[in-house]
Amino acid sequence: MTAPRQGFVVWLTGLPCSGKTTLGRLVAAELGRRGHLVDNLDGDAVRSRLSSGLGFSREDRDTNVERVAWVASRLSRAGAAVVVTLISPYEATRSRARATVEEHAPFVEVHVATPLAVCMSRDDRGLYAKALAGELANFTGVDDPYEEPADPELRVDTEGEPPEASAQRILARLEELGLVSGEPAA
Amino acid sequence: MTAPRQGFVVWLTGLPCSGKTTLGRLVAAELGRRGHLVDNLDGDAVRSRLSSGLGFSREDRDTNVERVAWVASRLSRAGAAVVVTLISPYEATRSRARATVEEHAPFVEVHVATPLAVCMSRDDRGLYAKALAGELANFTGVDDPYEEPADPELRVDTEGEPPEASAQRILARLEELGLVSGEPAA
Repeated sequence: MTAPRQGFVVWLTGLPCSGKTTLGRLVAAELGRRGHLVDNLDGDAVRSRLSSGLGFSREDRDTNVERVAWVASRLSRAGAAVVVTLISPYEATRSRARATVEEHAPFVEVHVATPLAVCMSRDDRGLYAKALAGELANFTGVDDPYEEPADPELRVDTEGEPPEASAQRILARLEELGLVSGEPAA
Repeated sequence: MTAPRQGFVVWLTGLPCSGKTTLGRLVAAELGRRGHLVDNLDGDAVRSRLSSGLGFSREDRDTNVERVAWVASRLSRAGAAVVVTLISPYEATRSRARATVEEHAPFVEVHVATPLAVCMSRDDRGLYAKALAGELANFTGVDDPYEEPADPELRVDTEGEPPEASAQRILARLEELGLVSGEPAA
């Protein structure tokens, strides 16, 4: 009989095109190399799986975030290391997500604090341009607010460093918190 | 480093008031006693957590079932024994749920085959009466079809036996399938 490992949730929040998805993939891959059962809940994928029909009003965004938090809490309870990458722009909603997860497992909030101008310059899908042109409504960073986390477990600014370095900083923080061991699994 | 146990999904399908929830709780409790990390995804709870806003049209029911199947697949991948109790009335949709889960873990379909008349007699919330009076539309067994599973891993008819006995038959089938050991965990 083997007990599952302690699960946890790493929650990457930030502006569109801040680099959350790229970072999340790198962190998930490294957690897998270190022997964790990993699940990666990424904003776009999750919308199609859990939240088709929801839009981008405050209410619909909140519902989406709450669903993701609920699924992440179930998975972390089962022992998974769950990497969530989701704009999740409202502080109050993120606090509720934390409370949902912390019923079962640690919640590690990582603010991907890439400056808006950098996010805009990286926007290969042209979403910011569309939002600025008024073709996309309720776009975070343009006509919908992004409320920065007041007290995240970690803040990374991807502007000055390659994603691999930012991912290593996230891993180091998870080690500090005692959630991940420093050595890859044998 | 401990590997998680083999997860699986036990999917209880049947008419409203067929006894799915009661059976699911008994099975989940016994799986817990035998050392499994268990999650129980029950129809009503899941609707509030994952599917607020969806109704009972065929399309909305399908979306609900697909969401539950997706969450169950993630959880079973993480090693959980997942007990789903959901009317899930359409054969094609259940087949898709099976395919989603079987990407990662075994899927055990249990048809809770309580006869309609018995379900109606057990209906302490008066839902069948409301449906028959035309006050509830798209009610499975009244004006919406229940398609019986053609080839479930197990069929239990709760009419002639106490729920504890039906639950033991489900556990015995899980043992036969090699998913559960016969002895409670030390």
